[in-house]
Amino acid sequence: MKVDGKHYTSIWFDESSQTVRFIDQTLLPHEFQIGEMKNLSETCEAIVTMRLRGAPLIGAAAAFGLAFALLDDPSNASFDRAAEQLVATRPTAVNIFWAVERVRGEIGNRPQDQRGAQALLCAQRLLEEDIRVCSQIGDHGVPTLQRLWQARSNSSDRLNILTHCNAGWLATVDWGTALSPVYKGHELDLPVHVWVDETRPRTQGSSLTAWELGKQGIAHTILTDTMAGHLMSTGRVDVCIVGSDRTTARGDVFNKIGTYMVALAAKDNGIPFYVAVPSSSIDWATTDPGDIQIEERDPEEVTHRRGVSADGEAMRVRVTPKNSPVVNYGFDLTPARLVTALITEHGVFPATQTGLADLSKQREAQASRSA
Amino acid sequence: MKVDGKHYTSIWFDESSQTVRFIDQTLLPHEFQIGEMKNLSETCEAIVTMRLRGAPLIGAAAAFGLAFALLDDPSNASFDRAAEQLVATRPTAVNIFWAVERVRGEIGNRPQDQRGAQALLCAQRLLEEDIRVCSQIGDHGVPTLQRLWQARSNSSDRLNILTHCNAGWLATVDWGTALSPVYKGHELDLPVHVWVDETRPRTQGSSLTAWELGKQGIAHTILTDTMAGHLMSTGRVDVCIVGSDRTTARGDVFNKIGTYMVALAAKDNGIPFYVAVPSSSIDWATTDPGDIQIEERDPEEVTHRRGVSADGEAMRVRVTPKNSPVVNYGFDLTPARLVTALITEHGVFPATQTGLADLSKQREAQASRSA
Repeated sequence: MKVDGKHYTSIWFDESSQTVRFIDQTLLPHEFQIGEMKNLSETCEAIVTMRLRGAPLIGAAAAFGLAFALLDDPSNASFDRAAEQLVATRPTAVNIFWAVERVRGEIGNRPQDQRGAQALLCAQRLLEEDIRVCSQIGDHGVPTLQRLWQARSNSSDRLNILTHCNAGWLATVDWGTALSPVYKGHELDLPVHVWVDETRPRTQGSSLTAWELGKQGIAHTILTDTMAGHLMSTGRVDVCIVGSDRTTARGDVFNKIGTYMVALAAKDNGIPFYVAVPSSSIDWATTDPGDIQIEERDPEEVTHRRGVSADGEAMRVRVTPKNSPVVNYGFDLTPARLVTALITEHGVFPATQTGLADLSKQREAQASRSA
Repeated sequence: MKVDGKHYTSIWFDESSQTVRFIDQTLLPHEFQIGEMKNLSETCEAIVTMRLRGAPLIGAAAAFGLAFALLDDPSNASFDRAAEQLVATRPTAVNIFWAVERVRGEIGNRPQDQRGAQALLCAQRLLEEDIRVCSQIGDHGVPTLQRLWQARSNSSDRLNILTHCNAGWLATVDWGTALSPVYKGHELDLPVHVWVDETRPRTQGSSLTAWELGKQGIAHTILTDTMAGHLMSTGRVDVCIVGSDRTTARGDVFNKIGTYMVALAAKDNGIPFYVAVPSSSIDWATTDPGDIQIEERDPEEVTHRRGVSADGEAMRVRVTPKNSPVVNYGFDLTPARLVTALITEHGVFPATQTGLADLSKQREAQASRSA
């Protein structure tokens, strides 16, 4: 997508320096800066600190981390060590596991001296694939938005879409998941307006989603997470679309903390609630959501807040009382019963075991066609 | 309640200076400072800027504002002007209307030269009444907490109470509404632990509720508003208690923005959701909640955040992108169907038209007993 007229992806491989470059997401929206990583530990650090975040994007980044490790030491032990370190960075997202398995499959039979280069090629292919998949999610989601726009019963002159967290192009390589149908709709002159949940504690909504929508010239309004229910109950939301870090084989959705409450408000007001996901973030092996570990993060994400002072200086302030403990869960579970459907690169599927089985079949059929 | 061992109320009349003193709530939790007001315009300013906030407390403050106006000019025109100005400060809360009517009733037949002093007495009596009413809310709420503690099915060694915003003693004169049963329970050695919703945008939860619970030595943990649903769905909340700025005669509850989403999550998880209210905040004339104006507040409450820097300096930072619009609603509507019961100074009543009618009868019976 565009940043001040120039095309960017959120991550790319720089051939001349043989390093990976990325947009540093901890500095947005106040500063636009390009980060760099050239080895495994820098990759892990970038993921843990969320300079790189978003389920699809950290999958892609993890593949580069494995490539760096294998370029350094191509042994199986090196690969296993690297995989373990990468998986430990963000335990809830399934995309890192998935990236590890993709790279493992590619290098399995290769002589050791080819493994590093092969893993690097694989990581680059993952970027291209991610762009294609996200673009397809948009193509499959747009008809839903167009249908809602034509069928709307209110008098609003725009289609009001509410989203939580950032599942835009910054969370992927390009296009995004939840926002891909929005970008595609905008290209087709659908009058979209996005209600952007702030998404505490890390405020990926107000910091990233608002920033990227603004850069594409798409109408949007930031709200605090507490306001979503009120907007829905007063008829100002036509549809909710969010992303997902991990979706189980029964359609239960793990996504940014707070998604569950958005889904409850949508249900209570008869508003469709869509989850846009690449099929790579579906955890086909898990049916019981109780098996998934919910990541607990640094309390300072709750107690402190980043911003800019009146004279433009970036700084961090403590916002809670000094001696009050805080809790900081990164994700919650939105049960499948609250999900209208999943928008994927293969089409739109009900969030049910049958729906997911259909998706799985289409996915395998396509894999065998392209094999 | 206590602040570092010394007893305080949130507001009091200082005889020697003939001014009203209050705890400045915009500076908490980082600074504890006493504000002063000595005329109507200072009173309006303190309410608008939320140096004084909380439905019961701004009712009491408004009574002093009227007294100041009448001490200055005891005419009916002066009273009406002052009443209008005060009501305009916070359109959603019913307590200001109520205070205006109370003072009007007291001064109605008095000669003009007695009106100011009479209004001042009335305001002071309102403070005492508020303390008594809030204490009674606590007494009526405690048996509910004790019952929940005895009936709990989980293995937690504490009763987990979730609250939204600040309905503690800072929102009233003393004791609080939602927190009064918690304080009373704590005095009776009930092992209470309070989950404190941050409550964006103004963060009255993390700034005020956490501060006052900490000062009373009550176990509590701050969460972002996005985490309440997750805590409830994973069995870590036994009961929700919130306050209300205005409750209709059918039991629909207007309270701090976000309350509705908390109530939805409670309902979805079978957790009781109580609203603690003095009967003065019940709007007996309103049955259709659509008639109530929802206050829209300064966008800077969303775009900026107050805190302290690493070296202890209080400051304000912008946290959203420069060009992204925001919306800022102060309240939302929690429909009566989501409310387990209302805890009032007259007892616990179902949030139904019949329940409210019973409350109204008891209220009138008591008024005639004390008349």
